[in-house]
Amino acid sequence: MRLGALLGPEIEEALRTNPAQLLELIEELHAADLAEVVAELPDEPASRLLGTLPLELALEIFGFLELPRRVQLITACDRAVAVKLANQMPPDDRADLFAALSEEVALELLGRMEKDEAADVKELLTWPATSAGGIMTTAYVALAPDRPIEQAIEEVRKSAEEMETIFEVYAVDPGGTLLGAVSLRDLVLAKKGQTVRDIMDPSTRSVDADVDREEVARLFSHYALTTMPVVEPDTRRMLGIVTVDDVVDVMQAIQTEDVHRMAAVSPIEDPYMQASVWMLVRRRLPWLVVLFVAEMFTSYTLRGYHWVEKAVEVMSIYVPLIISAGGNSGSQSSGLLVRALAVGEVTSQQWLRVLSRELAQGLVLGGILAAIGFLRAVAPFPVGMGNTTGVGLVVACSVMGVIVLGTVVGSMLPLVFKRLGFDPAVTSAPFIAVLVDVAGLVIYFNVAIWIFGLAHPVPAPAP
Amino acid sequence: MRLGALLGPEIEEALRTNPAQLLELIEELHAADLAEVVAELPDEPASRLLGTLPLELALEIFGFLELPRRVQLITACDRAVAVKLANQMPPDDRADLFAALSEEVALELLGRMEKDEAADVKELLTWPATSAGGIMTTAYVALAPDRPIEQAIEEVRKSAEEMETIFEVYAVDPGGTLLGAVSLRDLVLAKKGQTVRDIMDPSTRSVDADVDREEVARLFSHYALTTMPVVEPDTRRMLGIVTVDDVVDVMQAIQTEDVHRMAAVSPIEDPYMQASVWMLVRRRLPWLVVLFVAEMFTSYTLRGYHWVEKAVEVMSIYVPLIISAGGNSGSQSSGLLVRALAVGEVTSQQWLRVLSRELAQGLVLGGILAAIGFLRAVAPFPVGMGNTTGVGLVVACSVMGVIVLGTVVGSMLPLVFKRLGFDPAVTSAPFIAVLVDVAGLVIYFNVAIWIFGLAHPVPAPAP
Repeated sequence: MRLGALLGPEIEEALRTNPAQLLELIEELHAADLAEVVAELPDEPASRLLGTLPLELALEIFGFLELPRRVQLITACDRAVAVKLANQMPPDDRADLFAALSEEVALELLGRMEKDEAADVKELLTWPATSAGGIMTTAYVALAPDRPIEQAIEEVRKSAEEMETIFEVYAVDPGGTLLGAVSLRDLVLAKKGQTVRDIMDPSTRSVDADVDREEVARLFSHYALTTMPVVEPDTRRMLGIVTVDDVVDVMQAIQTEDVHRMAAVSPIEDPYMQASVWMLVRRRLPWLVVLFVAEMFTSYTLRGYHWVEKAVEVMSIYVPLIISAGGNSGSQSSGLLVRALAVGEVTSQQWLRVLSRELAQGLVLGGILAAIGFLRAVAPFPVGMGNTTGVGLVVACSVMGVIVLGTVVGSMLPLVFKRLGFDPAVTSAPFIAVLVDVAGLVIYFNVAIWIFGLAHPVPAPAP
Repeated sequence: MRLGALLGPEIEEALRTNPAQLLELIEELHAADLAEVVAELPDEPASRLLGTLPLELALEIFGFLELPRRVQLITACDRAVAVKLANQMPPDDRADLFAALSEEVALELLGRMEKDEAADVKELLTWPATSAGGIMTTAYVALAPDRPIEQAIEEVRKSAEEMETIFEVYAVDPGGTLLGAVSLRDLVLAKKGQTVRDIMDPSTRSVDADVDREEVARLFSHYALTTMPVVEPDTRRMLGIVTVDDVVDVMQAIQTEDVHRMAAVSPIEDPYMQASVWMLVRRRLPWLVVLFVAEMFTSYTLRGYHWVEKAVEVMSIYVPLIISAGGNSGSQSSGLLVRALAVGEVTSQQWLRVLSRELAQGLVLGGILAAIGFLRAVAPFPVGMGNTTGVGLVVACSVMGVIVLGTVVGSMLPLVFKRLGFDPAVTSAPFIAVLVDVAGLVIYFNVAIWIFGLAHPVPAPAP
């Protein structure tokens, strides 16, 4: 960001006055850093800059931009430049771009692009953006299985420029069915006279194009893969490959989704600063309203127990303390379990073991906090509303109760959500707090009724 | 997990009765899946299984196990087998293993290992586990810069087996200084007669060994790298390489840390099910105590305003509703900002723009929730404690106030923490809630004093 702000004006000036000097100015910079500058420039000079630079550098910079910025620039820039960029872009990035462009711009570009490239865009767009087909690229090397090694190397050599990776190439039969994977390493290490079939790994793992990208990321991490072929469901015809750098992006996206859900916000795809205030409001409002309406049950509960507060006046001042303790222990448990589920350390079948572990923690944590709460409630300072041992006992027992309750609700709810097919990340701090708040009040007042031996006052007969 | 539970007993049985049959039983399985079985087996049969299998397969399985499990197995298994495994293990994994082993076992193994390997362990252990030096491997190919391509390829071919990757190799001068990187791709595509120097990229990015792994992950993601050389600070002597799969692990670990911090738990490195209850308690307790003690200020506040509750009795039942609304909007803002900071979408310099965006959201969200709160407070059902338009106005104004307050505190605190060098993830739901709870009460009661025109009762003179 800082680099962009720093260099932006200089580059704008050079674009206006002396485009030839421009290349000198930016020669020293990595494409990733130039992309930061382009991200910060206004649309007009940014798209003009892309048109001025050599196509290869422009493509490289473009590859480092976020999708919303790519859409803006392609829409703003000269159509001839846009077509050139679109023809040469990596197929997976290109498909994502076209999915996000306005229909008008997309159709115009498709009409002017090379036929093969336009057809490729249309095919990739048939798969949902969040599926294996949606994140794959069609730029991979396919070899006939009976090809001698020397010819195969020659083929790889020739097509290397346009490919996303040549570290793994694929043996494919004439019908397009995937037979096996060949690593460039094995290709380089092969002996003379061998064919592709001799060195291919026929047990290579492939994934159906309609599989969700989260599952693809899980497979990459589980099997420590760097590349994975994608096949058409049923036919096993090879369609493309997913590479580990796409998986890193998927992991980032999933992670953002999880953090947003944990904060009670529906996932927002645009970068924070690019998302409009209105869109942010729409992703926050439903959760706030649901939580607000659910929290209204605390008012009903408090009204129901108002007679207890009247009998022991000092009780009302500990209400936030008691309920927040339950919410906090609940948010700890849900955070631990949400993450453990996300990385596959726990399955919902293990609920009983999780429950016993959380109960044990709840008892220890609750015991310690109960002791602190007791001391606070009986402390003679600052002198005030008649703190007594009785109130101390009520506070201590209630803290114990709500903390154990928090660990149970906070740990079990993510497992239940997972089992029902919902995202467990939803069951985080705010969500747990609402549940525990109402239950915490019920515990608090009933402990008081029990310890002080209170009886509900009989209402005066109507006059 | 399920696979482990399923196959565990069968494999134990085979180990006991017919070890020869074992290989047949497991032939079909991927090493990653076998690792799941080994993870679930008791120590004794698991370590015996590793000793029975061909060394290469045992190493592969070992590579898919979590670190705590590796430590248990190396400690439990036959020393001769342990030494064989330790000699052949990838250097980075081996260093992590030795850092976690008991001193006794580590020293015994080091004494019996091959000299080069033992020295390698000691050198890698000089770097902190969370630095570039701590995650690098020493298994990379270094080439003299004047080597002809054909010889270079031959060298790569010979050492390929032991290397973590040969997709990138390095030109290094006789003193060990890094000169540049050569991709296997360029090596394969090079013309006859060229030397390593001709095709190396002298501008390749390297990282000092003492740089934090989070920064390494950021560089990988920023520059879309797959491999990065690690050099000694000052001398630029090449020490090793970091590969993208290590970075995926680092990202996972950072992510786990963030989720734990967001849930008010100090980061736990062991998988949830392996962490002892006692260790979980120790990571949770300090936060719970801090939050509990901080929340005690709500009691002081409530006592200070008790006279207001006495004047307008119905007010007490809306306390949890008001303060939780502020906590929820605050947790949303902090979640959005924590994530935006983590992926570099926002810097703390942009605080003013963030503030204005959050204020705008707070006003819209607060307005809508205030309307809902007003309707709830004046609703004639269920009949109860004399809800009036006055109470409705107090609730509405307070909800508006706490929600705006929540967005401001929730968005600014992560930026402040980042600026001060703390992890912003700490400023999440429970932390924000405590701050907003006290402030929310102050807002609520002062709005009531203002709307109802209340005056503090003069205390009766002491008798």
